[in-house]
Amino acid sequence: MYKTSKVVFSPRVRKSPYFNSTIKYGVQAFSVYNHMYMPTSYEGTIEDYNNLLKGVQLWDVGVERQVQIKGPDAEALSQFLTPRNIKKCSKGQAMYAPFLDFKGGFINDPVMLKIDEDCYWFSLADGDALLWAQGIAAGYKFDVDIHEPDVSPLQVQGPNSKELMIKVFGNWVNDLGFYRFKEVNHEGISMVIARMGYSRELCYEIFLQDHSKGDELWEILWQAGQDLNISAGTPNIILRLEGGILSYLADIDRTNNPYEVGLDWMVDLDQEDDFIGKESLREIYHSGPTKKLMGAEIPGDPITAFNEERWPVLIDGKKIGSMNALVYSPRLDKNIAYTILSIEHAKSGKEITISSPEKEIVAITVDLPWLERT
Amino acid sequence: MYKTSKVVFSPRVRKSPYFNSTIKYGVQAFSVYNHMYMPTSYEGTIEDYNNLLKGVQLWDVGVERQVQIKGPDAEALSQFLTPRNIKKCSKGQAMYAPFLDFKGGFINDPVMLKIDEDCYWFSLADGDALLWAQGIAAGYKFDVDIHEPDVSPLQVQGPNSKELMIKVFGNWVNDLGFYRFKEVNHEGISMVIARMGYSRELCYEIFLQDHSKGDELWEILWQAGQDLNISAGTPNIILRLEGGILSYLADIDRTNNPYEVGLDWMVDLDQEDDFIGKESLREIYHSGPTKKLMGAEIPGDPITAFNEERWPVLIDGKKIGSMNALVYSPRLDKNIAYTILSIEHAKSGKEITISSPEKEIVAITVDLPWLERT
Repeated sequence: MYKTSKVVFSPRVRKSPYFNSTIKYGVQAFSVYNHMYMPTSYEGTIEDYNNLLKGVQLWDVGVERQVQIKGPDAEALSQFLTPRNIKKCSKGQAMYAPFLDFKGGFINDPVMLKIDEDCYWFSLADGDALLWAQGIAAGYKFDVDIHEPDVSPLQVQGPNSKELMIKVFGNWVNDLGFYRFKEVNHEGISMVIARMGYSRELCYEIFLQDHSKGDELWEILWQAGQDLNISAGTPNIILRLEGGILSYLADIDRTNNPYEVGLDWMVDLDQEDDFIGKESLREIYHSGPTKKLMGAEIPGDPITAFNEERWPVLIDGKKIGSMNALVYSPRLDKNIAYTILSIEHAKSGKEITISSPEKEIVAITVDLPWLERT
Repeated sequence: MYKTSKVVFSPRVRKSPYFNSTIKYGVQAFSVYNHMYMPTSYEGTIEDYNNLLKGVQLWDVGVERQVQIKGPDAEALSQFLTPRNIKKCSKGQAMYAPFLDFKGGFINDPVMLKIDEDCYWFSLADGDALLWAQGIAAGYKFDVDIHEPDVSPLQVQGPNSKELMIKVFGNWVNDLGFYRFKEVNHEGISMVIARMGYSRELCYEIFLQDHSKGDELWEILWQAGQDLNISAGTPNIILRLEGGILSYLADIDRTNNPYEVGLDWMVDLDQEDDFIGKESLREIYHSGPTKKLMGAEIPGDPITAFNEERWPVLIDGKKIGSMNALVYSPRLDKNIAYTILSIEHAKSGKEITISSPEKEIVAITVDLPWLERT
């Protein structure tokens, strides 16, 4: 399905605190993400997906590096960096809070954790948004300290994740609300435990605060999960597409703005505070976006082709967009895809042609997502 | 020698314009660098090195992305971003011009090309320094446009490189000075050709200005090189260490400043203009650095061990630094290494112990570099 090559381990690229555990439990392939090795496959895309859905799965997502903004102006700067209204976020709460540039294009799409009234973490997708935050802070004279703290996330995914988390950390996990977190010290390991993650399944994210304890934390969870059908997995393209979740640089990039990709709800133009991109977003809001992210379904047998780059999308032989991600979903029994189409064609029920290097593929546009949150 | 795993090709990571050529001519392994696949091996580290030294070699270094700064304040911003005195750089000239943070630590270590009086390129090492430059420019209100242009470097390396360049591009190459460049259109392909590169060998760097022409350019050079012993290669760890060349994130990172790594000559504290980190560098200059990059030689048989991360360096059982890179040099017939040692031990002729996961290795410190420029 995937084409692969070799990747050489070298000190230029960092290892996650869970690296040894991922090797021990059978990781087969990595990518590089935020200057670190990111596991991308154990038994295979479909096998890993099936394993998750029948139990509980550990994902090494240590590559999600944190930008910590702390100090008297932490709230003001955090607000300046994102179109979300972060004044609505309480201590102990998280929210999806993308960084945009002055034209409204995505710099990165982190989840923000409000650690304290004067301390915020932004859990990054791929890209050195630390440099963006530091450059902006220096130039606009925000009184803050910004750095990458020793924090390495691990996700606990799947239907048995809640039972595992309760078993290891206690009954309070029952009461943890969606996108809420708690600071915990367990067996001498400091961490922040949140109810969220990169799927629409039941899931949790553990922000380990001591990189020397990664394998120890993994092993505690692994042993406790022995009767819960525990397995090792990675962020999974099938789960991502089913749930309408975006992968920065794969599905969207700096050429996209929130109105193009279904993130209108995230932009608060009415808030009093200024934020980067506000003026551009107001213009886009009034004139409307010129292109739009749409789902697409491809009738027929399961597709095993995998797009190594974006494929052109055509109507009547004319390019009207691109196909950015494609996979077969076993539980939907459908081939599903993300496309970004020029706005006049971005309606559901349209027949489009996806031009792969091998052949032309006929598809029908649909609204996103295929599956809502569990 | 190297431990490897699989890397999966996906649209999240970009391909270089020379990607198909690298596959065609036998690339065996990649890393990921600036969100792109970077070839790291064809026949092997030593074989690729030997091939280069007996002819001419093409290196796909399309991963060196350019930050283009253009506009009325292009010179002022470029100067603010680096401790080099860029007023000494003429149009058509390049200089090594690292970006530092306010504490003097390396953000990146690009080579700058002065394309025009109001236009500069910074050819990046691994890291999104584009975001740094844009954040600084916005906050400090520099009147510039900053973006990543469609520019993808290809290096022509080795003793026969000059002959190949003259054969393809003409006799003017004879007169091209070190770190000088010329804009060229050859067979409809726009490019900037510079006499420089990532080794101390005779070498050139071609900055292709149209990504659709990568394989065409490669093939022109390849065919012209048939009687010049042409081969395909990659940035090579043996050449790097022999020449005392630094690899950002492998050898040095943001915790290092220029005075620690032999780049004192690059810092101009006496220039009138302010630059980021000037105050901190002045303090470090007066108090002296606390640690220093040193070479080290390991007596005995060629070492095949490869450090996947930095290894501790000890004297009398006490940690006094780290060993960041290690390789056997065939032409020196020596095992050579980079270490960063606390300042009181950073003298040549000292016996140190490198603590690898397998065993303790005795080494002797030496001054850098082993080889000067050809």
